Amino acid sequence: MSERSDQPYFERVAILGVGLIGGSFGLALRERGLAGQVAVYSRTPATRELAVARGAADIAAMSAEECVDGADLVYLATPVASLVPTLSRIAGHLKVGAVVTDAGSSKQAVVEEATALGIPGLRFVGGHPMTGSELMGVEHARADLFVGSTYAVTPSDQSDPSAVEAVVGLAAALGSRVVQLSPEQHDQAVAAISHLPHLLATALMLVTQQRAEAGDPVYDLTAGSWASGTRVAASGPGLWREIYASNRAAVLRAVDDFDGALAQLRELLAAEDDAGLEALLDAARQAKLEHPGR
Amino acid sequence: MSERSDQPYFERVAILGVGLIGGSFGLALRERGLAGQVAVYSRTPATRELAVARGAADIAAMSAEECVDGADLVYLATPVASLVPTLSRIAGHLKVGAVVTDAGSSKQAVVEEATALGIPGLRFVGGHPMTGSELMGVEHARADLFVGSTYAVTPSDQSDPSAVEAVVGLAAALGSRVVQLSPEQHDQAVAAISHLPHLLATALMLVTQQRAEAGDPVYDLTAGSWASGTRVAASGPGLWREIYASNRAAVLRAVDDFDGALAQLRELLAAEDDAGLEALLDAARQAKLEHPGR
Repeated sequence: MSERSDQPYFERVAILGVGLIGGSFGLALRERGLAGQVAVYSRTPATRELAVARGAADIAAMSAEECVDGADLVYLATPVASLVPTLSRIAGHLKVGAVVTDAGSSKQAVVEEATALGIPGLRFVGGHPMTGSELMGVEHARADLFVGSTYAVTPSDQSDPSAVEAVVGLAAALGSRVVQLSPEQHDQAVAAISHLPHLLATALMLVTQQRAEAGDPVYDLTAGSWASGTRVAASGPGLWREIYASNRAAVLRAVDDFDGALAQLRELLAAEDDAGLEALLDAARQAKLEHPGR
Repeated sequence: MSERSDQPYFERVAILGVGLIGGSFGLALRERGLAGQVAVYSRTPATRELAVARGAADIAAMSAEECVDGADLVYLATPVASLVPTLSRIAGHLKVGAVVTDAGSSKQAVVEEATALGIPGLRFVGGHPMTGSELMGVEHARADLFVGSTYAVTPSDQSDPSAVEAVVGLAAALGSRVVQLSPEQHDQAVAAISHLPHLLATALMLVTQQRAEAGDPVYDLTAGSWASGTRVAASGPGLWREIYASNRAAVLRAVDDFDGALAQLRELLAAEDDAGLEALLDAARQAKLEHPGR
């Protein structure tokens, strides 16, 4: 493992929480030579042992406190509701100057609550790797999970500029495209383009299942559009429960925006205003062609 | 080209309308040796010439009437609003005993209107190849478009059993999985699992675009769930306008069902009933794992 001058390098990294994201982060760090030593901690012994066995870490720590001992970089990859409690727990054990970042799917609450802890000298910068899979857990971790995906970095007014720079450099070194924005901007945007799509997939799946239970042969006829539209409904309910709870107001606003758009389409359809309907279909198509997404 | 005893074979086939479906049908027939000669007709000369150049047909006819002259099988692959007018136009030119089928995305109106034409001796059986792509047109046609997809065959009370058998055998010979059901059952089911998903993708795209126009950095953050959820919004507005118009009542019912499911999720979120929300997320996940779709 050699240090490359154009890449960040951390002598010791602690990863707290090793699911798909934490595990993939460890694999990527080690494969890319971004860390001297990687330690992991998970509450579940089998999980932290699997992380080491899969090469996502050099060592498994027996506690969160032990894991962060001497670490230059602390990566919080627990479920979103556990991020701030975990930070609170390790606060007294952080190395002076350690950079702390997280991988939570919503940012405003986490950043505010982390700041409110008032940990002296804390160099925390929120982050959100916008990657993943409905295949969860360290068993599905892979070193290239971050490659080509978007990594949001969400500094607050209190963030140390050099810590921000370190997290930005780290995300770029993982192969991600880095987008820097405020926690508020982030949460409003992801409510619309990440949390809302998951809720829509869930609702579509529920409607399909209701129809099937009523005897409609829906599952005999599902094709590409249904498969795409319900894909993320297979994601973990516990994980998503926490994501929704952590971004409640922004998600409700996004649902209301969506209701408005769908009601407009429904109204045109009901009124047999087929030209008006086509105009909206065309506007959506043009927007999609301009922004196919990644 | 040799005739295989376990496969259907048509001496002469006429394809009316050569977009993605009509073109792919011609390519598949010829590649699989299911037809002696394939003739195509499209209103647009360049389209029918391209169909021949791409190998989707042996000859291009100069009119619909000429195309069906002597054909044992007539395949109507025009946009859905043109199906019955086309059938009406060719009625007097059909060979005695010719089997006629269509590829329209909704079936009840087409089957009823086709029957209402009162064409003596007409052997019409409705069909719906549930395949396609947001890449439209004969230029994107491919011989394997039907392979592994679902092909709905929707006979009415008036359908000739041997004509039904011929269409079922044909669809199976294209490599599709054949599902036989009534036009009404078909339309209610596809409203929920095909037309509704397209409308949801459209509404999600419209919401995203509204946010972008308001200055939200949504397009900087789009990831997998958004890409899946908006994929089919790139499909042709003219095509979809006709599909919606041809299945209006069933689509409105599906939208209302969806509104109900989304409202239920929204209510739990607003009421901070996170356990109730998780229970629905879990129900959706279980249904998706049982029915991943194809």
